[in-house]
Amino acid sequence: MTDGIAIDRAFAERLFDELAVHTTDAPGVTRAAFGEGEQFAHEVMKREAAMLGLAQRVDPAGNLYLTYEGRDPALPGWVVGSHLDSVPHGGNFDGAAGVIAGLAAVRALSEAGIHPRRSITVMAIRAEESNWFPLSYLGSRAALGLLPQESLATPRSDTGLSLREHMARLGLDPTRVGSGQVHLDPAGLHGFIELHIEQGPVLEAEQVPIGLVTGISGSFRYRKARVLGEWGHSGAVPRAHRRDAVFALARLITALDACWAALLAEGETATITVGEIGTDPALHGFSKVPGEVAFCLDVRSLSPACLARIHDELMRLVARIEAETGVRFALGERTGSTPARLDAALRAQLAGVAKAREAGFVEMASGAGHDTAVFANAGVRSALVFVRNQNGSHNPDEAMRLEDFVAATDVIAHLLARDDNE
Amino acid sequence: MTDGIAIDRAFAERLFDELAVHTTDAPGVTRAAFGEGEQFAHEVMKREAAMLGLAQRVDPAGNLYLTYEGRDPALPGWVVGSHLDSVPHGGNFDGAAGVIAGLAAVRALSEAGIHPRRSITVMAIRAEESNWFPLSYLGSRAALGLLPQESLATPRSDTGLSLREHMARLGLDPTRVGSGQVHLDPAGLHGFIELHIEQGPVLEAEQVPIGLVTGISGSFRYRKARVLGEWGHSGAVPRAHRRDAVFALARLITALDACWAALLAEGETATITVGEIGTDPALHGFSKVPGEVAFCLDVRSLSPACLARIHDELMRLVARIEAETGVRFALGERTGSTPARLDAALRAQLAGVAKAREAGFVEMASGAGHDTAVFANAGVRSALVFVRNQNGSHNPDEAMRLEDFVAATDVIAHLLARDDNE
Repeated sequence: MTDGIAIDRAFAERLFDELAVHTTDAPGVTRAAFGEGEQFAHEVMKREAAMLGLAQRVDPAGNLYLTYEGRDPALPGWVVGSHLDSVPHGGNFDGAAGVIAGLAAVRALSEAGIHPRRSITVMAIRAEESNWFPLSYLGSRAALGLLPQESLATPRSDTGLSLREHMARLGLDPTRVGSGQVHLDPAGLHGFIELHIEQGPVLEAEQVPIGLVTGISGSFRYRKARVLGEWGHSGAVPRAHRRDAVFALARLITALDACWAALLAEGETATITVGEIGTDPALHGFSKVPGEVAFCLDVRSLSPACLARIHDELMRLVARIEAETGVRFALGERTGSTPARLDAALRAQLAGVAKAREAGFVEMASGAGHDTAVFANAGVRSALVFVRNQNGSHNPDEAMRLEDFVAATDVIAHLLARDDNE
Repeated sequence: MTDGIAIDRAFAERLFDELAVHTTDAPGVTRAAFGEGEQFAHEVMKREAAMLGLAQRVDPAGNLYLTYEGRDPALPGWVVGSHLDSVPHGGNFDGAAGVIAGLAAVRALSEAGIHPRRSITVMAIRAEESNWFPLSYLGSRAALGLLPQESLATPRSDTGLSLREHMARLGLDPTRVGSGQVHLDPAGLHGFIELHIEQGPVLEAEQVPIGLVTGISGSFRYRKARVLGEWGHSGAVPRAHRRDAVFALARLITALDACWAALLAEGETATITVGEIGTDPALHGFSKVPGEVAFCLDVRSLSPACLARIHDELMRLVARIEAETGVRFALGERTGSTPARLDAALRAQLAGVAKAREAGFVEMASGAGHDTAVFANAGVRSALVFVRNQNGSHNPDEAMRLEDFVAATDVIAHLLARDDNE
């Protein structure tokens, strides 16, 4: 394939650098959903799209669509994109890489004088990181008409202002978000492709630059769970009289870990994480039996059946530990997302292009959630392309080699260039 | 024994009420060591002592001595007392009850016209609650010349000001505290008696007002321990790649709980408490594998051998969990105190008086630490008298029935009245 398509590494590097400089929040970057950093990134993409002559549209929820028109604009088109928000003090690549990849691919086609039959829309999705609003896939669900109306009242974790208020402050139209209002019709899409850093250590460990994702884990979550026991004096209350919240929680976590190990041994894929845990500094003391402890639980799997098994086990363990220790678990609201199986044919096409381009890749599952899951579950042929990264994600040390990014973007651009793709 | 000795319930009630009103810090009371609330309580005791005609002395560390002179003041005398500080938002009785009991007993002797051979000194001890300064038995050790010089540099947990500075602000003389300077000579004491609320549920469960304490637990403590793992994405990092600080800590706690249960089954007495636990809200997240968690550990037993066994097991578990999970434990500084066996003869005398006065009592160990331990370990014949209490201690709901307090104080007063006691 000597088709003149060449991803401009300097173009991508310039955009990454510009984002890093202007959204720095040491350590790392902060691009709050519907906040300053995210909006800055949207403006950068609009400016670049204008220079490339792309058509621009912003939907009422603030998702941005930058379209390189095809020779036959009536045909269902491609959407290539990702999100532009970041976690607080996160890395520069999580999300933004997928939007910059779309622009870099379109730019390479344009510069090579290639005008495919189908239109290609680069999509900058709002609010994927649920640190800001405790909602999964906020922006992509809003685009596809899948965000419930009541989500608009959700307060942002840092400002306390509602999603509705944050949208209004950016001049968006929250009255047209929710209640099934569709701003991107799945039936009008030929396919959705997202490039994203892997966020885990697998590609780095396997020394391969590209991962073609087979499926995206779903989850169940308890973000505000508590164990309620009884406060007491650490020396004066004998073991038999205690209702120790921390010991009870330790028992739950240890039992969940054993359950997890057993499932993996059976060949299931799952993750179980208690990312936050804490006794209340206003109440606790080193000489007090802890009467309460807060925690959260995040369980993920590609398999809905596996999620259900873990949830059943959680309920059994909670009941057993309550009976054994006298504490009470207040798990709070359950949230979660549905696992997504990605399109095997589209993945095979990407694999074919990667082989032809001599780009190293493996097929792998994604334990992390991505907007691709929303498109896949809405019936859109969807693909997720991972780029090897170093130092994990959601932290300031997140890294990605630009040559790996270029290799993955090159594969996507060559797929988009083909008129024969179905 | 119709000797005219009658504890004045109204006198005690008035003093308790005055303390509660003036040191209220809703919920509960706060009497910070070397702070406003503690000082207020000292002033109240001085005023009452003046009205009773007692001799007053304040040592350089701020301990207060109020002496009802005996017929033979050259004889070694009794010290009856406890501390006047409280934990933050604590209860009104923990500590103060023992000082008020001393005054009420002396007052009852005085009003009955009884002047025993031996002098009786009511002692108000400083800074027993180690929430303020992380030092065990600060005031009583300072009185007996057992507080190391370097303790004076310890910052108070709330103000950050050193113990030296806090003493100086109250007009005390920190230059004369530490370095073995003795302000209360153990050789000059006939015995030490402390009345204290039980702080645990045992007397309430046994429906007995008084506990005569056989021994006071010693302890080892790690107040600022941490588990250091590796931060990661909760979905993207597989189990085998994780170094999860919270899972590792849960494993430690669960194993310590099992060790504890086994020791109790062998007949040992001990408590194991993890009173504080927490991931850092500035770093953690529900979608992050936790890379660090802080905790503290408080282990108590009447038996030095049992403490050593638990510490050995802790070291074994830490090494094993580090090897199994790849985390590292940073336990920090180890502190602790020595168990104290209390004087059997003095306890038998108190038991004899209690029987004669028809006051219900049991013998029991104290899991909580008390200043009595310092006196006992310094070779002073020592007794600790527990009063039944409700709702535990170190919390705003702490309670004590005044009739139980009066019954216990009555036993102490009758013991002090005896000229035959040796």
